Amino acid sequence: MDGVLADFETRFLEEWKRKFPNHPKVPLEERKTFYLAESYPGGLKKEIEIILSAPGFYENLEAISGGKEALAKMQKLGHDVFICTSPISKYENCVLEKYRWAEKNLGFEWTKKIIMTKDKALVFGDILIDDKPEHKGARKPAWKHVLFEAPYNKHVKDKLRITWSNWERILE
Amino acid sequence: MDGVLADFETRFLEEWKRKFPNHPKVPLEERKTFYLAESYPGGLKKEIEIILSAPGFYENLEAISGGKEALAKMQKLGHDVFICTSPISKYENCVLEKYRWAEKNLGFEWTKKIIMTKDKALVFGDILIDDKPEHKGARKPAWKHVLFEAPYNKHVKDKLRITWSNWERILE
Repeated sequence: MDGVLADFETRFLEEWKRKFPNHPKVPLEERKTFYLAESYPGGLKKEIEIILSAPGFYENLEAISGGKEALAKMQKLGHDVFICTSPISKYENCVLEKYRWAEKNLGFEWTKKIIMTKDKALVFGDILIDDKPEHKGARKPAWKHVLFEAPYNKHVKDKLRITWSNWERILE
Repeated sequence: MDGVLADFETRFLEEWKRKFPNHPKVPLEERKTFYLAESYPGGLKKEIEIILSAPGFYENLEAISGGKEALAKMQKLGHDVFICTSPISKYENCVLEKYRWAEKNLGFEWTKKIIMTKDKALVFGDILIDDKPEHKGARKPAWKHVLFEAPYNKHVKDKLRITWSNWERILE
């Protein structure tokens, strides 16, 4: 969901500048790691958490252009499509807002397709489209991981990389 | 979660009597079907939904006695235990309250073990302990279904039936 359907990074940076204007900021292009806490100087973990756990953060993420249309096309082609997403540990706003986000940006029917889990390796599937570079879970995943392009996963060379303008190559 | 760890039925009946004292009620012992809407006379679907989607319904379910201890024992024996639960379609209160329920009744660490999905067949596992008589999902489940005993699943004869006083037979 985040970084694939919902534009997590843009909003995080906006909120970061607004709430902590005197702290160093890392523009998206310079983000080298998936986890924000690893991209930002040590000692700012609590500030990152403040932003992510604030009411409205997840609900108000902008949709990443082309995502909704890609989901519709996948379904039209006969694929069974689900939204597999991991909540942050401070779940209070995140969990419900992910459902609200799906309803608002994709339509109510998609809320029934959400699979919310910290460990995506526990979910069946043929393909997982995700921006996270690596998945370490309780088992070896059944799905093939297709990487949704982001600056922080540029170093991954052994996976098919897509955006919503060229995703159809996964069908080949 | 509901009907296995959380006592859904008792609270539903209490709320039903309180909110709709003039409607017919079905005591737990007489419930023949898993879905409330099928147990109650036609035309009461909306009233059932009012109860289930009300703020506090899921959060305030009582814990089923022995559940927490059984989970702890499973973990102690080396099993990887998750809480697989399906939200109602009117997700607004249900989704978050299931996380809160787990934190309050089992402890915060268990909120990280929640897998929230309408379709449990999409989740890996060796065993699913569930009160729902049958699972029809997008695929054939990988897990063996162990039935948590309830009046509405008495008709199922081909599955191992347990309660929290005799669950250890699943280890045999």
